[in-house]
Amino acid sequence: MKAFVFHGPGQSAWEEAPDPAVKEPTDAVVRVDAVTICGTDLHILKGDVPEVRPGTILGHEAVGEIVEVGSDVRTVRPGDRVLVSCISSCGRCSYCREGMYGQCRGGGGWILGHLIDGTQAEYVRVPFADLSVHALPAAVDDKDAVLLADIFPTSYEVGVLNGRVRPGDTVAVVGAGPIGLAAITTARLFAPERIVAVDLAPARLEAAKRFGADAVADAREAPEQLIADLTDGLGADVVMEAVGVPETFELCTRMVRPGGRVANIGVHGKPATLHLEDLWIKNVTITTGLVDTHSTPTLLRMAAAGRLPTAQLVTHTFPLDHMAEAYDVFGRAADTGALKVVLGGEQHEVAVRGT
Amino acid sequence: MKAFVFHGPGQSAWEEAPDPAVKEPTDAVVRVDAVTICGTDLHILKGDVPEVRPGTILGHEAVGEIVEVGSDVRTVRPGDRVLVSCISSCGRCSYCREGMYGQCRGGGGWILGHLIDGTQAEYVRVPFADLSVHALPAAVDDKDAVLLADIFPTSYEVGVLNGRVRPGDTVAVVGAGPIGLAAITTARLFAPERIVAVDLAPARLEAAKRFGADAVADAREAPEQLIADLTDGLGADVVMEAVGVPETFELCTRMVRPGGRVANIGVHGKPATLHLEDLWIKNVTITTGLVDTHSTPTLLRMAAAGRLPTAQLVTHTFPLDHMAEAYDVFGRAADTGALKVVLGGEQHEVAVRGT
Amino acid sequence: MKAFVFHGPGQSAWEEAPDPAVKEPTDAVVRVDAVTICGTDLHILKGDVPEVRPGTILGHEAVGEIVEVGSDVRTVRPGDRVLVSCISSCGRCSYCREGMYGQCRGGGGWILGHLIDGTQAEYVRVPFADLSVHALPAAVDDKDAVLLADIFPTSYEVGVLNGRVRPGDTVAVVGAGPIGLAAITTARLFAPERIVAVDLAPARLEAAKRFGADAVADAREAPEQLIADLTDGLGADVVMEAVGVPETFELCTRMVRPGGRVANIGVHGKPATLHLEDLWIKNVTITTGLVDTHSTPTLLRMAAAGRLPTAQLVTHTFPLDHMAEAYDVFGRAADTGALKVVLGGEQHEVAVRGT
Amino acid sequence: MKAFVFHGPGQSAWEEAPDPAVKEPTDAVVRVDAVTICGTDLHILKGDVPEVRPGTILGHEAVGEIVEVGSDVRTVRPGDRVLVSCISSCGRCSYCREGMYGQCRGGGGWILGHLIDGTQAEYVRVPFADLSVHALPAAVDDKDAVLLADIFPTSYEVGVLNGRVRPGDTVAVVGAGPIGLAAITTARLFAPERIVAVDLAPARLEAAKRFGADAVADAREAPEQLIADLTDGLGADVVMEAVGVPETFELCTRMVRPGGRVANIGVHGKPATLHLEDLWIKNVTITTGLVDTHSTPTLLRMAAAGRLPTAQLVTHTFPLDHMAEAYDVFGRAADTGALKVVLGGEQHEVAVRGT
Repeated sequence: MKAFVFHGPGQSAWEEAPDPAVKEPTDAVVRVDAVTICGTDLHILKGDVPEVRPGTILGHEAVGEIVEVGSDVRTVRPGDRVLVSCISSCGRCSYCREGMYGQCRGGGGWILGHLIDGTQAEYVRVPFADLSVHALPAAVDDKDAVLLADIFPTSYEVGVLNGRVRPGDTVAVVGAGPIGLAAITTARLFAPERIVAVDLAPARLEAAKRFGADAVADAREAPEQLIADLTDGLGADVVMEAVGVPETFELCTRMVRPGGRVANIGVHGKPATLHLEDLWIKNVTITTGLVDTHSTPTLLRMAAAGRLPTAQLVTHTFPLDHMAEAYDVFGRAADTGALKVVLGGEQHEVAVRGT
Repeated sequence: MKAFVFHGPGQSAWEEAPDPAVKEPTDAVVRVDAVTICGTDLHILKGDVPEVRPGTILGHEAVGEIVEVGSDVRTVRPGDRVLVSCISSCGRCSYCREGMYGQCRGGGGWILGHLIDGTQAEYVRVPFADLSVHALPAAVDDKDAVLLADIFPTSYEVGVLNGRVRPGDTVAVVGAGPIGLAAITTARLFAPERIVAVDLAPARLEAAKRFGADAVADAREAPEQLIADLTDGLGADVVMEAVGVPETFELCTRMVRPGGRVANIGVHGKPATLHLEDLWIKNVTITTGLVDTHSTPTLLRMAAAGRLPTAQLVTHTFPLDHMAEAYDVFGRAADTGALKVVLGGEQHEVAVRGT
Repeated sequence: MKAFVFHGPGQSAWEEAPDPAVKEPTDAVVRVDAVTICGTDLHILKGDVPEVRPGTILGHEAVGEIVEVGSDVRTVRPGDRVLVSCISSCGRCSYCREGMYGQCRGGGGWILGHLIDGTQAEYVRVPFADLSVHALPAAVDDKDAVLLADIFPTSYEVGVLNGRVRPGDTVAVVGAGPIGLAAITTARLFAPERIVAVDLAPARLEAAKRFGADAVADAREAPEQLIADLTDGLGADVVMEAVGVPETFELCTRMVRPGGRVANIGVHGKPATLHLEDLWIKNVTITTGLVDTHSTPTLLRMAAAGRLPTAQLVTHTFPLDHMAEAYDVFGRAADTGALKVVLGGEQHEVAVRGT
Repeated sequence: MKAFVFHGPGQSAWEEAPDPAVKEPTDAVVRVDAVTICGTDLHILKGDVPEVRPGTILGHEAVGEIVEVGSDVRTVRPGDRVLVSCISSCGRCSYCREGMYGQCRGGGGWILGHLIDGTQAEYVRVPFADLSVHALPAAVDDKDAVLLADIFPTSYEVGVLNGRVRPGDTVAVVGAGPIGLAAITTARLFAPERIVAVDLAPARLEAAKRFGADAVADAREAPEQLIADLTDGLGADVVMEAVGVPETFELCTRMVRPGGRVANIGVHGKPATLHLEDLWIKNVTITTGLVDTHSTPTLLRMAAAGRLPTAQLVTHTFPLDHMAEAYDVFGRAADTGALKVVLGGEQHEVAVRGT
């Protein structure tokens, strides 16, 4: 088959790779119909994620069809159209028993395109298939579904649920890239009074408005003040960090009201300063987290009911074998305006039919 | 009357001061029978709390008898023996309505011995008396009760409840001074599997064992490792910071397991480093907070039922007018072994009878 | 002034009554601009609520302007436009401290138009004004606001919050009268996957659809089966009882899935049968409750932001002095199609201007 | 092997039965070292549980040693000493993913000694072994461990956790048989202010005191009044039903305070009357439930740490092959004073060594 293989920092290619096969009785092999590229994949390509070994097929998000299952897979079978979750779950360890699959200690967690071969390929082996893929309702098309593999559960669980958004809340989202926009979309499920998006790029702030932000603020122009003005001087009930640098995290801790919550969604490479000399007295809750994908069945139901327009994040589509081009477009988002790129999906089917 | 008056950094005295009187219809005046000294009082004396103006009577904890009430005080009356809480509550603002009295925006919060005259005096005016004093059951004596004004609700709310201690948990308490020992005592109300105390001073670690710690660790000897050994490499379910310096806070964030909670109780004067490059992926919750004292009625019931031996923290007692001596003994805790000092109480009554 | 006075079962009149005045320092007197009539008022008129003594002015919902306040009222003053809540709160008892104002033991709770004179009058004395009236944002007009006095917080707190509606849930609402319709409206704040309304009257089921029900079922035609069909045989996540008779309560307990919640909103006059022989094994949670109105500030914010179209429930409006006519129309709802009737409000202002 | 086989109402015997073997890759076969008898087993013998077919081996609680595992069992292996839980979990269905194993829809739930052969035998096949057995710490002996298979997680989850016992609460437990006594023991993990036990039998009330009840009441002598006297007229914070008849359930609903919780633990065969005409206004929460055993790992840790003296419930022990005698003693508890009977355990080992 063909797959997108990482060969060390700056080196990768869509190339021939061995077909995957079932190795464990809980495995499934999925024919990939649609994948997307995650910001994390860009980090891997740069060499920022050293545990990814050269030779690994990248990608941890996919929609496809089951083509083979191990002897102990019970909930899906060949022919089923499924969502491949970015998180695999052994289902047996203490973390999986509590739905905290991202912290799985039984061999799961984030493994696809990280510790084992991933989804940016024509086929992928998915361990622990019963708990790591989700049968797809026909009502959810590929482009919508593939965004439920990572970005939507991440923003919903790590941002909205950890931040405990409630009806009537003032919610600030710092960072209006794809993950921040997904956070805005999913925060709206809890009917906050208002959502304020903060970013540096005017184009991203415009996008935030389209995704449902009620107000936007340039990160350079004292967004704390806008929040204070909107909240009688108090601060936001919930602030979500969706960038991953120290400055934005620190901004979040200045925007939250006493008794409020800061939910970190960003992937950080450096420490931040925590101003405990101000915060110790403020009854603030700060949360971090890798997605668990425990909410994926719920989000799928919402999408099937037409209540979660995930595909509005998709700005570009490509055939599956245009992987290098898709990486390029996604990697130069500031120039290309890319939010999420999807490879395959209907696009792919058209190509196939066209042959 | 006599009172302990702050005259600027390093200057204070037990001296003559005007008798307080009811000024607002919600005020009460309390004759002070017992008070204690808080670590915060030492900070004020050093000049670390600049909003305390010279001329202020210090102290925010007391037990005494109501001698006068304003026209709108309904729940207590002259002759009632009461606990004066460190936190006053207007009862009307949005924070008070949610029980977050420490964040009161209606004139309450921590005001006694801070923004208005406090309890280290023969009499004290207490604003918002209905919500800021608690009638004392006869079964709770002065020494036990006065520790319910601040240190016990603080450790219970900001440490144990914020940290969500649960039966079976491994709990680490960093700092085995008075507040850490109170945290150990109140953590035991939730039947954790084990409590590990961490400190530098052998005497404090010994005290921790007496208060119920199951294991102790010298902070210089890699307590992370002890916690890891006890928890199959995972880390503690709950870690409480009870010191207030960056190093101990950072230690806490290294001791917590994925999915665990760090509850900051310490009063911090400097920022700490938050290692988001490690923590972003760990599903950690960090909480801060000033005490609200919403738990005081519960703790009083527990004390009255003999289930909360608060007075075991009291190492020294003095007559009320030995305030300077008590401050000296409490301020040199490393030498004197002081945990909490109580002025007045039975001591005071003896002195009165002795006259 | 004029007021609607209860003179015993079946006897009542809009008649002259003494002007109210401040009696306690925490009282306010409000000039009534708009009121509504509650189903409970009809019960009082029939004699079903014996603790209402003849001579009592009815009504527990109003919008108006403060004309006088007692010496200890701090948060509102004459000239303020306010919402008068159906629940008064002493703010001092253990229940009020926990936000459970409906269970107030300090003289509050449901007292207006029940134990003391109520709001269906030109003026009303409101005890504990600081905690029992809410300053009204200009953006919320009278007709919207007056429905926030009782019916909307009731459906939201006792139905939606007690029932813990969550995104993706299947919610069933049994009874599509005014309270059921308000439950549908407020359930939508939590983005359920679907809301199913159950009633006997086709007109009510039509109304349910207009208010956002995704499906409706005739109560005589095995609505359990519809729910089962929609939920893979499981049952609804949340079922709300909004009628108040044994049969509908029992229906609710048959419609709920294992692990689901039944939230009773209805006012019951008779016991129901609880089929514990079926339910003991089903992990079901059943809640009851009188409204506390702790959510009123949140709902007001939502209404001011245009996110809670409460006035869509209002089918009829009258000048304030057409009270008897309004009771008649509301009391014959099956014939008149009345959902909520509002007296005064813009109507009243027009009348005033017209003079 | 030998096993205790049900042959229809009133007919059962310890007799020869086929040795079990692994049938599914997720099965384990366990050599039974200790079992106990549950009240439910008595109901089965009487014919009250018709889905148990003649020929079924009874029993759903055991301690033993793994002798064989299927190819997909990962967390235990032959030679491991394990607790066999009364609930099996497929680990894959929506209920298992939320820890609600008792409601498993994937073939688990309560199946042992119910839908398939159970544990009252020399060997037992356990489906879904990874999630349905628990490796036993050496520190927990057989007699302590076997009570963690059902009765302790049942009382803890369905009584204490569902009832949300909190420090300082007044807890009433109606029914002081084995399950009520286990509820008293586990309620104490949350440091309630007091536990009041209610029963008809003086011997049971004496037992309740030994297990930690602070007060006891004869069910015929208006226990509501005792509760009211102890709680300033309010009622208990938490009431647990541990009998299973309508009268005791109804008593529970009269003993609970406004805002309190009634947790039903009893197995009911008949409906009860729910006095909604009193309860609708009281903000009461009523819960039901079959045990999920999600708490078993926690309880095991507590037992291993010496913090949960489960074996104090064991009044009688027998060799495994004295099953009929053990049933007789347990079935005549009023005469024999039996609380829990254990077969095998150390007893068994002695017998083996004696051979």
